Amino acid sequence: MVSKNQIKLITSLQLKKYRNEHQLFIAEGVKVIQELLLSNFVLDHLFVTDAIFDQVGDTQKTVVKEADMKRISVLSSPSSCLAVFQIPKENKIEAKGLIVALDDIRDPGNLGTIIRLCDWFGVKQLVCSTETVDVYNPKVIQATMGSITRVNVNYVDLGQFIAETQLPVFGTFMDGKNVYNENLPKEAILILGNEANGISESLEKSIKNRIAIPRFGDIQQTESLNVATATAIFLSEFRRS
Amino acid sequence: MVSKNQIKLITSLQLKKYRNEHQLFIAEGVKVIQELLLSNFVLDHLFVTDAIFDQVGDTQKTVVKEADMKRISVLSSPSSCLAVFQIPKENKIEAKGLIVALDDIRDPGNLGTIIRLCDWFGVKQLVCSTETVDVYNPKVIQATMGSITRVNVNYVDLGQFIAETQLPVFGTFMDGKNVYNENLPKEAILILGNEANGISESLEKSIKNRIAIPRFGDIQQTESLNVATATAIFLSEFRRS
Repeated sequence: MVSKNQIKLITSLQLKKYRNEHQLFIAEGVKVIQELLLSNFVLDHLFVTDAIFDQVGDTQKTVVKEADMKRISVLSSPSSCLAVFQIPKENKIEAKGLIVALDDIRDPGNLGTIIRLCDWFGVKQLVCSTETVDVYNPKVIQATMGSITRVNVNYVDLGQFIAETQLPVFGTFMDGKNVYNENLPKEAILILGNEANGISESLEKSIKNRIAIPRFGDIQQTESLNVATATAIFLSEFRRS
Repeated sequence: MVSKNQIKLITSLQLKKYRNEHQLFIAEGVKVIQELLLSNFVLDHLFVTDAIFDQVGDTQKTVVKEADMKRISVLSSPSSCLAVFQIPKENKIEAKGLIVALDDIRDPGNLGTIIRLCDWFGVKQLVCSTETVDVYNPKVIQATMGSITRVNVNYVDLGQFIAETQLPVFGTFMDGKNVYNENLPKEAILILGNEANGISESLEKSIKNRIAIPRFGDIQQTESLNVATATAIFLSEFRRS
């Protein structure tokens, strides 16, 4: 049984304003919740339609009807479980190794996919501009498939961060140098820009290394690669060495 | 003004059954429709909320209210235009160069993104198993961003296609050889499998070259890469040479 107040609280967490107010976020689906339970994230409450997640005690778990799950779920086809977790304190930035920086990524699916890519390619630190979509947006959490537990995400003034770093800075631009011909270092910052506008002009000035994925089509009409698929290729290039 | 019958017809095109019956499909958004109008695709009718697409005559264009656009649109936030195009006859398969083959890809966004990637990397032929999501699904068309006009898509018995080809066949498997160490030919067939189950067992037997993208994370827990981001990296590897 879910009370009216619980429904109101949980659905309010779809908005950043209320996530910040309550310091809580939603995760849905067995795989994502399983990974969060195995990590340092702290569970607030778990709602399930079946007898799953035995490791969670009854004080923190409520069995609900499918109709109630539909009421609290963000998904058009709800899964068998929805969990509310505490938003952890932001860790300090680990300014070493390969770091990915995002300049105003707006699409939750793109951010989630990029976090999953960071995890695959051993990138432990993701730095986001303050205008980038919130990592605790339910659609981001969903798209990370649990990788959120292994990637440190910080929101910063990206201009200041770039100005202060000792690491070499690489920015991705349509007119950049062919990434396949570049010598890419093990430690660096790789910046990806907004879906529609790319990297902002104010940031562009402080980026020394401009790189691009060359087009191979005969007819040069393809507008651009999606930012998540571009991130996949750039990370692959940094790691393959 | 959109008639009740028009609304019924257009919304029915969200289902493959009715697309096949009427041999029509829906495209939404300025960019996608623009590319389709510039290609060999044949327009049936265009619905707009603003005075756009001057090149389309009044017999084929209807100005509608935003409320009506909401009624016919697939999108939660409809754009200013929705077009109905004729489904063209399937072209013959061009069995040369680099060919991408999909074994039961189910997610429309993944298929659309893969078509966009094929376009970027100059892959002109995409071959899909009959169980792969329909290319004229509105969400696929949306995700291609117009690249559908430059990539030939065929649905075939993939087992038979692989059995009959003269080209070297590469399949992507979690336990495949490190793709970064392989000598990849210019002409080949690259097979990607279903989101949940990978390449089907019946197909697996006839694949000689098994390749994989190595993981780089310390903790080896990342389940897998999304099939679209994996396709991005594999195509990049085939093309970078």
